[in-house]
Amino acid sequence: MAAHIATLAGDKHTRSADGYVKLPNPHLAGLRQDGLFHIKVPLDDHETLKEFSNVKFVCIGGTPGRVRLLAEKLSTELNLGKEKDTGDGPEHHFDFSFSTERYSGYKVGPVFCVNHGMGLPSVAILLHEVFKLLQAAGCSGVTLIRVGTCGGLGVEPGTVVVSSGSLTAGLKEVYVTSALGQPVELPVAVDQDLVKEISACASSAEGDDFKVKVGKTYCAEDFYQGQGRLDGSFCDYSKEDQLRFFNKLQSLGVCNIEMESAAVLAMAHKVGVKAAVVCVVLVDRLKCDLPLLTVEEMKRIENYPLQLIIRHIKKQLSKNS
Amino acid sequence: MAAHIATLAGDKHTRSADGYVKLPNPHLAGLRQDGLFHIKVPLDDHETLKEFSNVKFVCIGGTPGRVRLLAEKLSTELNLGKEKDTGDGPEHHFDFSFSTERYSGYKVGPVFCVNHGMGLPSVAILLHEVFKLLQAAGCSGVTLIRVGTCGGLGVEPGTVVVSSGSLTAGLKEVYVTSALGQPVELPVAVDQDLVKEISACASSAEGDDFKVKVGKTYCAEDFYQGQGRLDGSFCDYSKEDQLRFFNKLQSLGVCNIEMESAAVLAMAHKVGVKAAVVCVVLVDRLKCDLPLLTVEEMKRIENYPLQLIIRHIKKQLSKNS
Repeated sequence: MAAHIATLAGDKHTRSADGYVKLPNPHLAGLRQDGLFHIKVPLDDHETLKEFSNVKFVCIGGTPGRVRLLAEKLSTELNLGKEKDTGDGPEHHFDFSFSTERYSGYKVGPVFCVNHGMGLPSVAILLHEVFKLLQAAGCSGVTLIRVGTCGGLGVEPGTVVVSSGSLTAGLKEVYVTSALGQPVELPVAVDQDLVKEISACASSAEGDDFKVKVGKTYCAEDFYQGQGRLDGSFCDYSKEDQLRFFNKLQSLGVCNIEMESAAVLAMAHKVGVKAAVVCVVLVDRLKCDLPLLTVEEMKRIENYPLQLIIRHIKKQLSKNS
Repeated sequence: MAAHIATLAGDKHTRSADGYVKLPNPHLAGLRQDGLFHIKVPLDDHETLKEFSNVKFVCIGGTPGRVRLLAEKLSTELNLGKEKDTGDGPEHHFDFSFSTERYSGYKVGPVFCVNHGMGLPSVAILLHEVFKLLQAAGCSGVTLIRVGTCGGLGVEPGTVVVSSGSLTAGLKEVYVTSALGQPVELPVAVDQDLVKEISACASSAEGDDFKVKVGKTYCAEDFYQGQGRLDGSFCDYSKEDQLRFFNKLQSLGVCNIEMESAAVLAMAHKVGVKAAVVCVVLVDRLKCDLPLLTVEEMKRIENYPLQLIIRHIKKQLSKNS
C-alpha cells in the first residue's frame, strides 16, 4: 500500500494549461458536504467565492500580526484597500477578513494574506484549505509566497534569503508527510524564474538597508535538535557535531534554516501553483543559537521580506494591468 | 553520525530519584546566555522562577482560548486564583500570565496552563521551553497533561479518550524527530498508572454526560492525507484504502487520531516527566471526515476533557496537602 502511494504522490503535478487551479483530488467533486475546517471562509457562499475569484497572490507568514501588517502595507501601497482615518491613524478595510485562534486572513484586492503558525503540519493544514478555496473560487495564475524569519549559515542578520530549494531531515529535497499510516515523500520543486524575479526586486535605488541572497534552505521539523541547537531541553550531540552539521549543510548549498519551506514548495508543486519562500535572517547560526537582536531591531528587519515581496507584487500587477 | 544519535536518543530517560526535573542536556549548565525564545517567561528573573517553583501540573491544549478557560475553571474550582467581580462577571487573576502570537500561558497556583498550536513541531518547541523553565524553577513531581480534540474510530463524538499509547506514520510507538539533519526516533512511553488515575475520575455521581475510554492514539503529522481524509486539496487513494487504514489502526488498538500525542509522550519520557493525553472525539471517522457538530455542541463537548482533568488535579492536590 505504502509503495503504491509514494509512487502516485511522487511526480505528478497539475499546472493546468489555462492557469486555473485544478486540484488532483478526484473525491472533491462527489462530496455530499464540503467545507474548510480551520480557515473561516465559507466554501458554500457564492458571494464570498466571487470576492476571492480575482486572487493572484497568496502571501503566508507565521503570525497573524505579520500577515495583517503585510495586508495593511499592501492596502496602502497598491491603493487597493479603503482606508478611513478615525483620528488614531488610518483604519484599513479589507475585502474579506477572518480571525480565529488558529489562523487569521485578510484579502486586499488580488492578494490574500493568511498566517500559518509554526511547523510543517500547521502550514500543511492551511495550504490544503487555501488550495481548495482557490479552486472553488475559480482562481487562475496564482503565486504563493511565504514570508518568514530564519537562522542563517554564514549569513548576517537582516539579510533576506530567497529559497532556491529546500532540504529536510535525510538531506533530500522532499517534504516528508504521510498517507494512510505510511510516510510519503513529496518532491520539492522551485520555480527558478520566480526566485530570480523576486530577488531582482532588491533595489539600492529605493535605499534598501538589506541584502538579498539566493540559496537553499534547510527545513527542520523542530527548533532545537532539529536545527542543531545546543540549548533545548535535551541534546545528544556535541558542539563539534553541530559544526560538522552546519558545514555539511553549507557544502550542499544551504544558507538558511527554517521550519515550513518544504511543505510550501512541495504542496504548491503538487497542485500546480507557483511558490516561493522569502525569509529574513535573525541570527547567524555559525556564531550562536539564540538571536541577539533587540525587540526593535527584530521588528525592523522582519519588514525586509515584506518590502521585497510588495515590490514584486506591484511589478507583476502592473505588467498585467 | 545518524546511527550514533539514534542510539543515544533512544532509551534513556532521567526521571530523577528525588523527583526534581533534571534535563539530559550537558550544555545547559555552561551556556553564556540562555533564554526561552517562544514563551515569554524570563529565565533570568529570580522572582518569576520562585513563582514557578511550586508547579505540579502543566496542562497544554491547542488554542489560547482553551487553556485560558481551563485556567479560569481551575482558579474557581481550586479556590486558587484571586477573582474580582467587575460587574461583568468575575475577572480572573493569575499568578503569572503571558500572551504572544505564538503561545499564551496562565499560572494558577500549582498549575501552569499553556497552549501548543497545531502539530508536532509546534508542541515540541513549547515543551523544550517548558521543560527548561521547570528545571530552572526547581520544580519536582510534575505531571504534564495535554487536553485536546480528536477524531474517533468507532467512538462517538463527545467521548473522552485517555491515550494508552501513541503510534505515528510507520505504525510504531515512536515520535519521529531529527537531529543534525537525520531522522531520530524517540520512544513513546505511557505511565499506565496515570492513565488509570485519570480515567477513574469519570463520575456518574457528578452527572457526567460523557463517557471515558482508554485506548491507543494515532498521531498524524497532517490533518488530511495523514489522517486518511478524502477531502484535502490532493488525495492519492480510494475510499476502500481509507477503510482498510482505519481497520488496520483498530486492529492495533487505536481508537482516536490527533496530531500532538507522540511528541508529548516521548519528550516527557525523555526528560523524566510523567505525561498523559486526554482528548474528546469531535467526529467518528468511520462515518465521515468532517465533524457535523454545531458551534454550540463543539463548545460544550470541548469542556469534557477539562472537567475530567480538573477532577484529577483536585484529587492529587488533596492527597498531597
